[in-house]
Amino acid sequence: MIFFHPRMKMNWPLVWITLCLTSTTLVIGGKILVFPLDGSHWVNMKILIEELHLRGHQVTVIRTTDSWYIKETSPSYTSVTLGGESGFDKEFLKNFVAQLIIIQREGKSAWTRFKLELEVTQKAAEMSEKMSKTIVQLLENQDLIETFHKTKFDLVLTDPAIPGGVILAHYLGLPLVYNVRWTSHGEGHFDIAPSPLSYIPLTGTLLSDKMNFLERVLNMVYFGFMQIQLAYCNTPYYSALIKKYIGPEASYKALFQAADLWLMRVDFVFEFPRPTMPNVIYMGGFQCKPAKPLPQHLEDFMQSSGEHGVVIMSLGTFIGEIPHDLANEIAAAFAKLPQKVIWRYVGQRPDTLGNNTLLVDWMPQNDLLGHPKTKLFVAHGGTNGIQEAIYHGVPLLGVPLIFDQHDNFVRIAARGAGKILDFFSMNEDIFFEGLKEVLTEPSYRVNMERISRLHKDVPMKPMDTAIFWIEFVMRNKGAAHLRTESYRLPWYSYHSVDVMLFLAAAVLLILGTFVAFIRLFCFKVCLRKKIKSE
Amino acid sequence: MIFFHPRMKMNWPLVWITLCLTSTTLVIGGKILVFPLDGSHWVNMKILIEELHLRGHQVTVIRTTDSWYIKETSPSYTSVTLGGESGFDKEFLKNFVAQLIIIQREGKSAWTRFKLELEVTQKAAEMSEKMSKTIVQLLENQDLIETFHKTKFDLVLTDPAIPGGVILAHYLGLPLVYNVRWTSHGEGHFDIAPSPLSYIPLTGTLLSDKMNFLERVLNMVYFGFMQIQLAYCNTPYYSALIKKYIGPEASYKALFQAADLWLMRVDFVFEFPRPTMPNVIYMGGFQCKPAKPLPQHLEDFMQSSGEHGVVIMSLGTFIGEIPHDLANEIAAAFAKLPQKVIWRYVGQRPDTLGNNTLLVDWMPQNDLLGHPKTKLFVAHGGTNGIQEAIYHGVPLLGVPLIFDQHDNFVRIAARGAGKILDFFSMNEDIFFEGLKEVLTEPSYRVNMERISRLHKDVPMKPMDTAIFWIEFVMRNKGAAHLRTESYRLPWYSYHSVDVMLFLAAAVLLILGTFVAFIRLFCFKVCLRKKIKSE
Repeated sequence: MIFFHPRMKMNWPLVWITLCLTSTTLVIGGKILVFPLDGSHWVNMKILIEELHLRGHQVTVIRTTDSWYIKETSPSYTSVTLGGESGFDKEFLKNFVAQLIIIQREGKSAWTRFKLELEVTQKAAEMSEKMSKTIVQLLENQDLIETFHKTKFDLVLTDPAIPGGVILAHYLGLPLVYNVRWTSHGEGHFDIAPSPLSYIPLTGTLLSDKMNFLERVLNMVYFGFMQIQLAYCNTPYYSALIKKYIGPEASYKALFQAADLWLMRVDFVFEFPRPTMPNVIYMGGFQCKPAKPLPQHLEDFMQSSGEHGVVIMSLGTFIGEIPHDLANEIAAAFAKLPQKVIWRYVGQRPDTLGNNTLLVDWMPQNDLLGHPKTKLFVAHGGTNGIQEAIYHGVPLLGVPLIFDQHDNFVRIAARGAGKILDFFSMNEDIFFEGLKEVLTEPSYRVNMERISRLHKDVPMKPMDTAIFWIEFVMRNKGAAHLRTESYRLPWYSYHSVDVMLFLAAAVLLILGTFVAFIRLFCFKVCLRKKIKSE
Repeated sequence: MIFFHPRMKMNWPLVWITLCLTSTTLVIGGKILVFPLDGSHWVNMKILIEELHLRGHQVTVIRTTDSWYIKETSPSYTSVTLGGESGFDKEFLKNFVAQLIIIQREGKSAWTRFKLELEVTQKAAEMSEKMSKTIVQLLENQDLIETFHKTKFDLVLTDPAIPGGVILAHYLGLPLVYNVRWTSHGEGHFDIAPSPLSYIPLTGTLLSDKMNFLERVLNMVYFGFMQIQLAYCNTPYYSALIKKYIGPEASYKALFQAADLWLMRVDFVFEFPRPTMPNVIYMGGFQCKPAKPLPQHLEDFMQSSGEHGVVIMSLGTFIGEIPHDLANEIAAAFAKLPQKVIWRYVGQRPDTLGNNTLLVDWMPQNDLLGHPKTKLFVAHGGTNGIQEAIYHGVPLLGVPLIFDQHDNFVRIAARGAGKILDFFSMNEDIFFEGLKEVLTEPSYRVNMERISRLHKDVPMKPMDTAIFWIEFVMRNKGAAHLRTESYRLPWYSYHSVDVMLFLAAAVLLILGTFVAFIRLFCFKVCLRKKIKSE
């Protein structure tokens, strides 16, 4: 591995050669320690790891015994399996979505809904507790830590939606790179960049970047509630751990902010424009690639659609079975379309299924979205699917369910590239009208094609950008010159509250002295007059 | 010229072709209207224009009859000469620097210094007045405006240190791109990105991004004074003009903020890391290029220096003659060096000049800085010179004089890549010690080479980046998706002051109602007790 140590002493001609070499991105076989998050987050981390492997880097992935998607063996990485649990409970998540659908569709009481939310918060706290125990086990495992030290990793790559990789990188004293959209505290930008709540909507509010007064009030109130929730189900499990293993001065939030590089899984074709920082690199759509040819039976099905084309529907990995009556409503609406339909569906076959609809339990989503016959994508609104739709320029009909899915669609709707339906109150007619609108109103396709064009109109592909900057951190042992150290300031100093109070006090003191002087003067004058008159 | 209109309707295969085409940066012969600023700012605008011309774009440059550097004819552009004055008074500027040196060296009273500052403020106001009159003349010149409309320019490129181009772009309804480090209101970032004064030093304070409490107070006070100064010598001359020609709702500052793209003439190797925005593109060092071979007599001189190498000195274009006694001190210090010296110097030959020192009235600065024999650059701290020194990795000895020069060197000194001397109190010994320190202490060279390496370790050369984004704005008729519209919010909404007051009032109302209820309840209980006891 060839690196240039920042303090390496060189003579001038040698420097000239290194300059030429570094500018051609010379990194041979770096060593990367990855602390990923399971579930859909792993889907995109895996794509990044595969690319790093292809470019000659050695990747070691940390997983737990209860890992769901993260396999123990892979041609792209070697894995280290920790004894503890990740706390990532796929059954709970699937169950939660199923319950949510039932509650919403059957119009159960607000109390039932609240109880479910409480359960989720409880579960999040439980997950934090389990993860924190696993991290302690990891840090206490001196043999493993010793092996990590001996391996001389160049950096830790992590998804900071869980703090494991963040804490480990600091413990090992390694440069830290994020594959990020969320940190443990919420949307990633809120941790690193100034985020005026007047035009930056919080995820969950379903607001856009143009808010009226009441929407801005809602955004602020929501922000307050989020802080309380985080304080309850996140921070307490890690604070003591961090003080013990990182240092008594270390703060949980500042650890996150001290990362060298944030590879953000959005771009400003998708996300609303907002303040950012020099060490935030946008790699939204890095997972997208041109479509490969379809298997013959799918290609035949696509071609059989003629001039009408095909509608694709998928609700992602979290959705197991949907209620049978809802499936019937959806199938009935599809049956009325002149288009053909490919529907990723598990569960009992809907009774109303039309001849035009093909049910599949898995589909090559990217290849279908890139097929010229595809006219519309009915999606739940996970980031991966939306990015693929943007990449291929396919308009969206959104039926968001949980997490950030509705907010993601708010962004798509704001650009006129898709329409949102309420999944829970949906029936055949509403769904059919939605389908018809996006299929027949040309603005949806025109707008989606416009943002697709903008998404691709960048100097470098998002994946190449991501790899360049990961290798940059390897070459330069971090990216200190891109990172402010403002996170070290206490909040009152960061926001200049101390300075303002000081200046206010100074002004008051000067005014006070002035007034006292005037009064003293008047008093003397009055006294003199009095003496004279006496 | 081939463009894709955002609302152009296309069928799918055509879209696919356009996607492929746009991603290979297809812009053929755009038309660019440039409203530059004269003086040293023109030096770098000219480099950008030359590159645009090379890449097949037609450039039209607006100048005034009293233009200093901006020539009427050029192979790279056609010019339009306005009748009015730019107000850019080169004689005043040269005179100001000369006076400043005398005042500082001769230890004149603070009052004399203050008078000079007042004169400068007065001059700035005068310049604004002249420029505003010139802009009115331009906007009233219906023939010229008609010609501009007919030419169908793709964008206006301007240096927003003066508002001419900003106003003209809005008047013509054209996309607007900045070649910027300063706007009329100060350092460019302050207009567009959140800028916490707790770690972002104002230019002129000589502070770094790590400030103690008193430095933060100074930064805040300085900010206040700057606002007052701007309100006096800038805004009033343009506000009425803008309301008349752009619209009654238009605000002077918001016009600046509404630009599509900010090509910022810094990078974070030079500038301290700070919040930024998606439509700010960093092109620091875009003017730098590899050294060309020197003229034979200079090459011979360089080679004659042997192993010791050469020191280069230049104080930029604003400095005419420096006081003879100071020139003698400098020359005497140079004479004591084992190195050879090339000194860009005008005026009477110093009496103490050593055999090792070559006086020149002009020098190929970039080629000299890129020469392997060059060991040190003694500079005044203009951005162009500093960027060239960073590009070639030559450590700096700074003798800053005016404007941002001292602050520029604060950034270089913070990285350990140079040392600052006080030009005004400098004598032979101080200057010699400074030269010796930077020449013999290896850390200066090591650090400068490190930042030079970082500067070049980017995915794309700064000039290519600048051109890509200018052409992006042409292709896409702007860059709306990268620009927040938060500048349209009134300040109290932007900072959520209205929301906070509303929430505070709501909390008070709830508390008040609660207290009133309790009091009413107590009152009733007491009343009942009283009745009973009676």
